Amino acid sequence: MNAPAHNPVVPRIAALREAMQAEGLAAYIVPSADPHLSEYLPSRWQGRRWLTGFHGSVGTLVVTADFAGLWVDSRYWTQAEAELAGSGIALVKIAVASSPAHLDWLAGNVAAGASVGVDGAVLGLAGARALQAALDGKGVKLRTELDLLEKVWADRPGLPAAAIYQHEAPHAIVNRAEKLALVRAEMGKLGADWHFVSTLDDLAWLFNLRGADVNYNPVFVGHALVGLSGATLFVAEGKVDATLAAKLAADGVRVAAYAEAAAALAALPASARLLLDPRRITLGLRQAVPAAVKVIEAINPSTFAKSRKLDAEAAFVREAMAQDGAALAEFFSWLEGALGRERITELTIDEQITAARARRPGFVCPSFATIAGFNGNGAMPHYRATEASHSVIEGDGLLLIDSGGQYHGGTTDITRVVAIGQVSAEQKRDFTLVLKGMIALSMARFPRGTRSPLLDSLARAPIWAANVDYGHGTGHGVGYFLNVHEGPQSISPHTPAEPQTAMEPGMITSNEPGIYKPGRWGVRIENLLLNVPAGTSEFGEFLAFETLTLCPIDTRCVDRELMRADELAWLNDYHATVRERLLPLVEGKARDWLLLRTEAI
Amino acid sequence: MNAPAHNPVVPRIAALREAMQAEGLAAYIVPSADPHLSEYLPSRWQGRRWLTGFHGSVGTLVVTADFAGLWVDSRYWTQAEAELAGSGIALVKIAVASSPAHLDWLAGNVAAGASVGVDGAVLGLAGARALQAALDGKGVKLRTELDLLEKVWADRPGLPAAAIYQHEAPHAIVNRAEKLALVRAEMGKLGADWHFVSTLDDLAWLFNLRGADVNYNPVFVGHALVGLSGATLFVAEGKVDATLAAKLAADGVRVAAYAEAAAALAALPASARLLLDPRRITLGLRQAVPAAVKVIEAINPSTFAKSRKLDAEAAFVREAMAQDGAALAEFFSWLEGALGRERITELTIDEQITAARARRPGFVCPSFATIAGFNGNGAMPHYRATEASHSVIEGDGLLLIDSGGQYHGGTTDITRVVAIGQVSAEQKRDFTLVLKGMIALSMARFPRGTRSPLLDSLARAPIWAANVDYGHGTGHGVGYFLNVHEGPQSISPHTPAEPQTAMEPGMITSNEPGIYKPGRWGVRIENLLLNVPAGTSEFGEFLAFETLTLCPIDTRCVDRELMRADELAWLNDYHATVRERLLPLVEGKARDWLLLRTEAI
Repeated sequence: MNAPAHNPVVPRIAALREAMQAEGLAAYIVPSADPHLSEYLPSRWQGRRWLTGFHGSVGTLVVTADFAGLWVDSRYWTQAEAELAGSGIALVKIAVASSPAHLDWLAGNVAAGASVGVDGAVLGLAGARALQAALDGKGVKLRTELDLLEKVWADRPGLPAAAIYQHEAPHAIVNRAEKLALVRAEMGKLGADWHFVSTLDDLAWLFNLRGADVNYNPVFVGHALVGLSGATLFVAEGKVDATLAAKLAADGVRVAAYAEAAAALAALPASARLLLDPRRITLGLRQAVPAAVKVIEAINPSTFAKSRKLDAEAAFVREAMAQDGAALAEFFSWLEGALGRERITELTIDEQITAARARRPGFVCPSFATIAGFNGNGAMPHYRATEASHSVIEGDGLLLIDSGGQYHGGTTDITRVVAIGQVSAEQKRDFTLVLKGMIALSMARFPRGTRSPLLDSLARAPIWAANVDYGHGTGHGVGYFLNVHEGPQSISPHTPAEPQTAMEPGMITSNEPGIYKPGRWGVRIENLLLNVPAGTSEFGEFLAFETLTLCPIDTRCVDRELMRADELAWLNDYHATVRERLLPLVEGKARDWLLLRTEAI
Repeated sequence: MNAPAHNPVVPRIAALREAMQAEGLAAYIVPSADPHLSEYLPSRWQGRRWLTGFHGSVGTLVVTADFAGLWVDSRYWTQAEAELAGSGIALVKIAVASSPAHLDWLAGNVAAGASVGVDGAVLGLAGARALQAALDGKGVKLRTELDLLEKVWADRPGLPAAAIYQHEAPHAIVNRAEKLALVRAEMGKLGADWHFVSTLDDLAWLFNLRGADVNYNPVFVGHALVGLSGATLFVAEGKVDATLAAKLAADGVRVAAYAEAAAALAALPASARLLLDPRRITLGLRQAVPAAVKVIEAINPSTFAKSRKLDAEAAFVREAMAQDGAALAEFFSWLEGALGRERITELTIDEQITAARARRPGFVCPSFATIAGFNGNGAMPHYRATEASHSVIEGDGLLLIDSGGQYHGGTTDITRVVAIGQVSAEQKRDFTLVLKGMIALSMARFPRGTRSPLLDSLARAPIWAANVDYGHGTGHGVGYFLNVHEGPQSISPHTPAEPQTAMEPGMITSNEPGIYKPGRWGVRIENLLLNVPAGTSEFGEFLAFETLTLCPIDTRCVDRELMRADELAWLNDYHATVRERLLPLVEGKARDWLLLRTEAI
């Protein structure tokens, strides 16, 4: 047993059980969620982490009088096993994060007539409906008005306080008043006169505002209620200064306290027709809507609008990509020079790559935590090196680096795998198969409106051909100086939660097939793709992909024998473009490196 | 106006209106459907055709006191326009057969409090639910117990009377008792002690019986109720002779009158746990189940089991394919010799191809109505030449022939396009693009369990690359001496009605991309593919496709410049296989033709 003698979570769980008993609850659920259904949670809503000690991004805690368990998907099994040691909390392994296994457990282990509690303020509507259905079948009651964390978490962080700032011209192309008019036009089409928005990237896009309330995503915590003539933005006090408040007021936007959002919904007149996105609102807020109000369910107009980048936005993204590529050229030229001379670890990679980006104009912050995985660590798609556990880059193998930056003119996300020392034939084969898949999707052309999941197999086919597959989707939408993961499109074989996955001009999506050999190495090659018009025929409008990402793909890892002529032509064309676009932005060793690594093969 | 002076359907619609009035109905719906939700309807359930004069396979008639309209999808607009002339029935154009447009029309045009009627005995559960929801919203009542056709159709055909016969060894591999045991095992897993089956191909498969009650599908009209120890088959009197009845009885199968099926459901004990496939039962039969019976909804075990052909079945299919290919070699050699010497029409094609198949051992009947379309007629995917309207095969162009046969050892379905006279560069380009799509899917390898719709884009990608697309799915499941269209898998971008689309070993699916230039020509190339194991790796089990269909692809139509080396290799390998497999089965001119048309390019 290597359990810590005094695991700090033990008294926390005990306190939770006391609070449960006081409320007469047989079980309490703590999901990994906030009132905005965000991917990255402000510390205030990291209650599941505080209660368990588990630092992974997703996991569901269920506590009863005599059991506590954490449902964790396969990405995090090893980490959870270590972090839960001595906590008294059982690790329950599930295959994927969306698994409803804990619902089955609750249905099977809570007695009929008993009550289960959860904070409805952080529960998405779809999850709430599934939970209700699972418990209804067993005659178990569900109480969703209880935030027991508020009672047991004495030093719970408050609302994040970072100032909100404006996304300014020239990078903000469409002004706030025009965006509000656009959303109101969509509301009109749907017969709505009110619209409520909880999702943080939707708020940031709609109001041309940005913040720093969560890591990596330049968003702020808030809600908005949009009417036909005005709008109210609900944010914590002190986040909007007087100057900004005046600018907002000029566009008909009133600033109100964060906590007033539910009350504003509750105060809607009975005649209101309220547009809500059922995938983007919590149960708690949904329940605040008076029964008499007609609720119209549809995707947030802003979610769809922000996915379609304007030409002027795409132009700034191209600039950001060139700066990002130049930063990577500097980083990789440093890396190749330093290998064998300095001690370089996976943590060094993170520092150096972020420093290289930080020297570039327009850079704001990384767009997610850098994944730098050498050999076996690269085989874990969600690996993150820590002070306590990381590898030194030495000897032979493959180094996988997945990183990205937030720039005022766009968001980047790129994965490259580079040779360290000697690369084996099997490593080259895996690299080349992934490259073939990446190229196949890059070359695709398809009718406008094609459902994005249908494109997934184009990237997989060359990998499947070798009896190999990868467990993640091939691509996710990417924001414009916004979240590195956004919808509604996604190139994935998994049935999407989002029914609207039609490919439209201006969307930016990642293209990142991979091959993972557990304990040995991982290969993933990722570029971002822009949907661009590819002409119209008697069969309708067609789209093609413009590859936005500009950075050499390590040809030392390519097995040329496995490449078809058209694939080699794509690779050489790509490198010619990378060279041409980055050359003006680099000098010295970075320039030499760029010329070397963009040579045709 | 070219309307017939006395359209016979005018008094029929009038009689329907009288019957509606007597029942107090504001509207009556006549779908194209039978109690078994079949694709091909016995004449007894061709009431929509009798009432409208429209001969297309799908269309929904809605009649009110002052309106009659037929909702028809784009395949049949031209035909319906002609056939409805003078009927007083309006043609309502819808894009696809599954469109719910008539529901919206009913909701918008029937007054609240009024009643709409439809025969629930031919209404699928899903359609019934959608109809109910559309009318509920408007306060309109739905009555489903009325078969008004019974009142107005004086000479309505009775139940089809063709004898039922046994699918015999050696072609029937698994005997009836074993199949019943298999279904009962699945029932056990689902906690069911009863199972009701209405779909005709499921009945035929489960009881190893065949019939001739509908065109092209060797099935018989009936239902079955399977218990844990016995089963009852409900068929019209006289269809099962004493010898067969005795064989059935030996396997615990009782024969009862067709009309008793609903009563048998109604007589189930309150303790019964009944397995039903909600996609494969009508509202009328569902409503016959007592409320106390626990209904377990799942795909019919037989639907899934029959989709996975056994190795011994696949071996017979290979034999049937060779005979089919030999018949086609005879047909095509005749065609090439006769062109320019005899007058050949699209109807002649149908006669000759069926005659060639009929000379082959094991042939039973065509598996669907032959589509022979020359030039512009080939551009209509569902074209059928008639005595009144057909083309002569002369001059230059492309002849598309889609045909198939039922053999005791399998069902075939093949499309070939052949050159007539000179073929233009654009025709060759279209042919080659389709061929590339067909080859891309043929060469695919994929993890077992891959959802079949995800494979669709592999066939489309080479066609999309030229800004071209086709409006139909790429592939459908095919039965074993059973329906030429069967589920659950389907290679189609359309969201499948069937949630279970996982690719499993033994499934047979068509591969038939196309390009259609309205009024000019159509290209479709179709082979049937068998899912075969392709090895297991650390990433799981993989499947590949074995091409079952054996018939040359007209290389005179191929633009070699558009073909990649691997595509040419596939084509030449395929032709080598076709030559080797068919050569022992043909002689004379057919042999010469086979040798010529299987030459490598």
